[in-house]
Amino acid sequence: MARVYERVALIGLGLIAGSMAHAMRRGGLAGEIVGTARSEETRRVAEDIGLCDRIVATAAEAVEGADLVVLAVPVGAMGEVAEEIAPHLSPGATVTDVGSVKKSVIEAVSPHIPEGVHFIPGHPLAGTEHSGPRSGFAELFDNRWCLLVPDEGTEAGALERLTELWEEMGAHVDVMDAEHHDLVLAVTSHAPHLIAYTMVGVADDLRRVTDSEVIKYSAAGFRDFTRIAASDPTMWRDVFLTNKEATLEILGRFTEELFALQRAIRTGDGQHLHDYFTRTRAIRRGIIEAGQDTAAPDFGRSGTR
Amino acid sequence: MARVYERVALIGLGLIAGSMAHAMRRGGLAGEIVGTARSEETRRVAEDIGLCDRIVATAAEAVEGADLVVLAVPVGAMGEVAEEIAPHLSPGATVTDVGSVKKSVIEAVSPHIPEGVHFIPGHPLAGTEHSGPRSGFAELFDNRWCLLVPDEGTEAGALERLTELWEEMGAHVDVMDAEHHDLVLAVTSHAPHLIAYTMVGVADDLRRVTDSEVIKYSAAGFRDFTRIAASDPTMWRDVFLTNKEATLEILGRFTEELFALQRAIRTGDGQHLHDYFTRTRAIRRGIIEAGQDTAAPDFGRSGTR
Repeated sequence: MARVYERVALIGLGLIAGSMAHAMRRGGLAGEIVGTARSEETRRVAEDIGLCDRIVATAAEAVEGADLVVLAVPVGAMGEVAEEIAPHLSPGATVTDVGSVKKSVIEAVSPHIPEGVHFIPGHPLAGTEHSGPRSGFAELFDNRWCLLVPDEGTEAGALERLTELWEEMGAHVDVMDAEHHDLVLAVTSHAPHLIAYTMVGVADDLRRVTDSEVIKYSAAGFRDFTRIAASDPTMWRDVFLTNKEATLEILGRFTEELFALQRAIRTGDGQHLHDYFTRTRAIRRGIIEAGQDTAAPDFGRSGTR
Repeated sequence: MARVYERVALIGLGLIAGSMAHAMRRGGLAGEIVGTARSEETRRVAEDIGLCDRIVATAAEAVEGADLVVLAVPVGAMGEVAEEIAPHLSPGATVTDVGSVKKSVIEAVSPHIPEGVHFIPGHPLAGTEHSGPRSGFAELFDNRWCLLVPDEGTEAGALERLTELWEEMGAHVDVMDAEHHDLVLAVTSHAPHLIAYTMVGVADDLRRVTDSEVIKYSAAGFRDFTRIAASDPTMWRDVFLTNKEATLEILGRFTEELFALQRAIRTGDGQHLHDYFTRTRAIRRGIIEAGQDTAAPDFGRSGTR
């Protein structure tokens, strides 16, 4: 048991904060875990399942005496929360966040951080399609990456301590600048999510293909998209609105490439298609070799067999 | 043990034919299973692992005396195989296929089927991203759908017998006409595959986001796309070239919808995005209730935890 922080305040009690609570307990990493959420229902559930040591009604209360404050609310709500907690932060405390976008969070939060408090933005690249206080589990971060985005002024000691927390929760830690983070995530996460949402929406719209057919015959590939498109709508709305530029840039590239492949289909250019599909196989192999996905066929899906 | 056919000939020994061999053995459904593949290496592996009762060098040999012939080659190769086997088919035999496209397979195969032989096109909606003679397993079709595409002239008894085989292999069977099949599959399978291939190709292309970053940080959503984009290139090239019309139509609808969402992002229309993302969640619930996917978070991925 290696205690890293004496009191951790979790603001927002969804999948990520909930999983952090479980992971911190697994490792004995926090003296006390205090949680809060804006919704009374969420706080009640968290209380019922004993997610934290203490649940309080407001973010201002939650951060009292905390040496680590984790902002785990949708990206669009970060600024407001930062403003609320600012007067209540302890000198020497670290504030971090787990938002999927970094530039806009930094712009929204930084101005509120008082002198003597460390703000180190972060983003654990882990998640499932589930959300809410019951969805967390201790293993979520195991073998996943957490990106931290310090600036030149960040105190080395504070960065080390936060790094230690993430590593003890099972993650690998990388440091990255905010702009690059937002571009990389537009590729590996934001564009794929918007594309999946779009395809599922199109299927839902088609009158000639009834709902029931789309559902019955989803195992042919479509169901993978529906998992992604079942992610939390508020969180994702905020991601797209706040990482607008990078997401639109990648979607532009995507559309360009899609048009080229459509053209190959229309003109019957089989060689172009075959070459393209062969190249994409290699990336999959890389991901499995890097331990970032299972090699089991069909993700080793078991519940449906 | 309920033997349905006396001798089954499998032409092509990839994921689907291999899984059929395993499933037929599990249920004792075939007196003898004879297999063949164009590639000598595939035949050798099939021989080594005892995939069939007998491996022969040519499709013509394989169909000798068979009461069921299964064409399990890429869609673009079906016509050629049908031509080769035609003179060797036994009277009263049934020929079926497992291709992902039906209209073009019917056009390519039907002209070669001799009088007195039943041709009943089929398509099991099951698969993984793996291919080749080692990739099959007996449970692949359990609780999945198999679509059969008979025409007015199809003999009821022959259709019943093929239906029984698929049901005994674990599948549910639906009958559908070829045109509708090709449209439904364009939605649930062909368009999603092309989109996944495209997104993975785009990620591979981006110079500013190095390969290693795309791979390391893939768990944020992208890795689901890479699984689909690791599917067999030859099979998928043929699917797109032969289901051109329906695929291009669905991709057109997809692009239109994607543009609308891009516009919502650009103009900051959060309500539009939130409404859209809420609607797509319902389809996911339907798929899980229909037993076509696991409710376990993140597909219950286990190998990487």
